Amino acid sequence: MTIENVSWNKSFGGWHKQYTHHSDVLGCEMRFAIYLPPQIAQGEKVPVLYWLSGLTCTDENFMQKAGAQRIAAELGIAIVAPDTSPRGEDVPDDADGAYDFGHGAGFYVNATQAPWNRNYRMYDYVVHELPALIETHFPVNDKRAISGHSMGGHGALMIALRNPSRYTSVSAFSPIANPVNCPWGKKAFTHYLGNDPESWKAYDSAELMKHNAQPVPALVDQGDQDNFLAEQLKPEALLSAAQAVDYPLELRMHEGYDHSYHFIASFIEDHLRFHAQYLL
Amino acid sequence: MTIENVSWNKSFGGWHKQYTHHSDVLGCEMRFAIYLPPQIAQGEKVPVLYWLSGLTCTDENFMQKAGAQRIAAELGIAIVAPDTSPRGEDVPDDADGAYDFGHGAGFYVNATQAPWNRNYRMYDYVVHELPALIETHFPVNDKRAISGHSMGGHGALMIALRNPSRYTSVSAFSPIANPVNCPWGKKAFTHYLGNDPESWKAYDSAELMKHNAQPVPALVDQGDQDNFLAEQLKPEALLSAAQAVDYPLELRMHEGYDHSYHFIASFIEDHLRFHAQYLL
Repeated sequence: MTIENVSWNKSFGGWHKQYTHHSDVLGCEMRFAIYLPPQIAQGEKVPVLYWLSGLTCTDENFMQKAGAQRIAAELGIAIVAPDTSPRGEDVPDDADGAYDFGHGAGFYVNATQAPWNRNYRMYDYVVHELPALIETHFPVNDKRAISGHSMGGHGALMIALRNPSRYTSVSAFSPIANPVNCPWGKKAFTHYLGNDPESWKAYDSAELMKHNAQPVPALVDQGDQDNFLAEQLKPEALLSAAQAVDYPLELRMHEGYDHSYHFIASFIEDHLRFHAQYLL
Repeated sequence: MTIENVSWNKSFGGWHKQYTHHSDVLGCEMRFAIYLPPQIAQGEKVPVLYWLSGLTCTDENFMQKAGAQRIAAELGIAIVAPDTSPRGEDVPDDADGAYDFGHGAGFYVNATQAPWNRNYRMYDYVVHELPALIETHFPVNDKRAISGHSMGGHGALMIALRNPSRYTSVSAFSPIANPVNCPWGKKAFTHYLGNDPESWKAYDSAELMKHNAQPVPALVDQGDQDNFLAEQLKPEALLSAAQAVDYPLELRMHEGYDHSYHFIASFIEDHLRFHAQYLL
C-alpha cells in the first residue's frame, strides 16, 4: 500500500495534499485529496471526515469550492476526498460518454454485472481500502464520519446505514435519497447491479433506513430551488422512512438554495460542527 | 448600458450572480460576477469590493474558490469580479496561445499599440465603465475598495495608487508588484504599451508608490513558498518604495504558503475586515 504525494498546498495553517496510489479493489490508479489540520504538527492524531462527491466530480471539487478547511483547521479534523469512480483507459466507461454513468459516476456500489464488476467497486474502496490506507499513512485516529453531495450524499447515507460501527455520524447535501425510484439511480443500478430491483435495495438509503437497527446520527440539508429535487433526490422518501422508525435524522429545507457548491459552502460549517460533536 | 443576468445562486443568505453586457470601452461582450449580501433585502445600499483576478482567470475563480462570501454576507459588502481581459473571436490573442498575454491576460492597462489598442483597455473598464454600470444597476453606494491576486494584485495596487479618490482601501495577494522589472510585465507591457520602458511606469505599483501624494491604506499578503516570488512578484520593490515615502502599507510574509487559492482562502477574511474599516 504505497502512496505518492503529487501536490501540496498550505491551507489555514494545515495542508491540502493530493496522493495517487494503486487500488487493488478497483484495479486502477486512483487519486485522493486529504486536508490535514494544523493540530497534527503537535503530534496529535485527528479524526477523519470522508467526503463523497457527486456526478462528474473528482477529489478536487470539494477541496476547492466548499470552504471546509477553515473549520476543519479550527476543530482539528482531517478531511479525505476520494474520486467518484475508478478511472483510466482500461476502465470501461459509458459508450456515449454520459455524465451520469461510468467514469465520474461510480454510485458507491460494488458492481455485479460485466463488464462493470471488474473495476466498479467503489463501496469496498470507500468503506475498506481507502480508510485502511489513510490510517496507515497519516496521523489519524479510528474515529470516522462521512458526508457527501448528491450522488455522494447517497453514498454517505447508504454507507453509514450499512456500517454503523464504522462511522460516528453522517451528513449529506442534496442526496439521491431513494435511488431505486429515480432516473439516475435506475440507470446506474441496472447497469452495475442487474435488472432485479430487489438487488438494488441494499444500496438505497430510504430502504435501508426502514429496517435500521443501529442508527448513526444524521444531518441532511436540501435546497428548495434545486433543479433535481422532485425527480432525482426525493428527500421525502428518506424523511418518511426516518419517521417510521424514529431515526435520528435532521432534514433541513433551505429556501432559495440550489444544487451547487454555493449551497454547500453556505452550510458546510454546520456539518463540520455536527460531526465534531461525535468525532472529538 | 443594459446587462443580462445569466446565472444566480443563493449564497450565505445573499446572491451570487453572473451578468453579460456589451462593453463600449473594450468593444466586446464581457461577463462579470457580483456577490450581493443579504443586507440589500432590507433596502440597504452596500459598498463594493472590486476583485481583480490573475492570469488565465475569469470572473469565476475567486467566486468559487476564495470563500469570501461568508464574510461579505456578515459585513454587508458586495463583491464584483470582472474578467481578466477582453474576450471573443474578434479580440486579438497571442499568436501561440500563451497564458501570459492576450486573452486572460489584460494586465489592467490601456494598450497603445496596434492591434491591441482596439480592445485591451482593461484600465478604463475597471476604473470607469464597470463601476458606472454596477452603480446604475445594483443597490450599492459610492464607497469602493479594490483587491486582487497576482496580475490582479498588480491591477488593484496600481489602480488605487492612480485613483486615490475613488477607493477607500486596497489589498493584494501575491501581486506582480514591479512589473517593469519582471518577465511577465516586460512581455505584456512591450506588446500593449510599446518598447519604451518609461511609458510602462504609469502602470507599475512600485514606481507609482515612490511618487505618491495621496495614500490609500494598503494590505499585501505574500507566501514565502510562492514559485513566482523572486522572479515575477518582487514585493521587496514595493516595500522599499513604501518605506521611502512612509506609505501606509502592511506587507505580510506567510511561511509555507504558495501562489494558489488555498493561500487566498486562508487569509481573505483578514482582507475583507481590513476593507470594512474603511468601507462601512
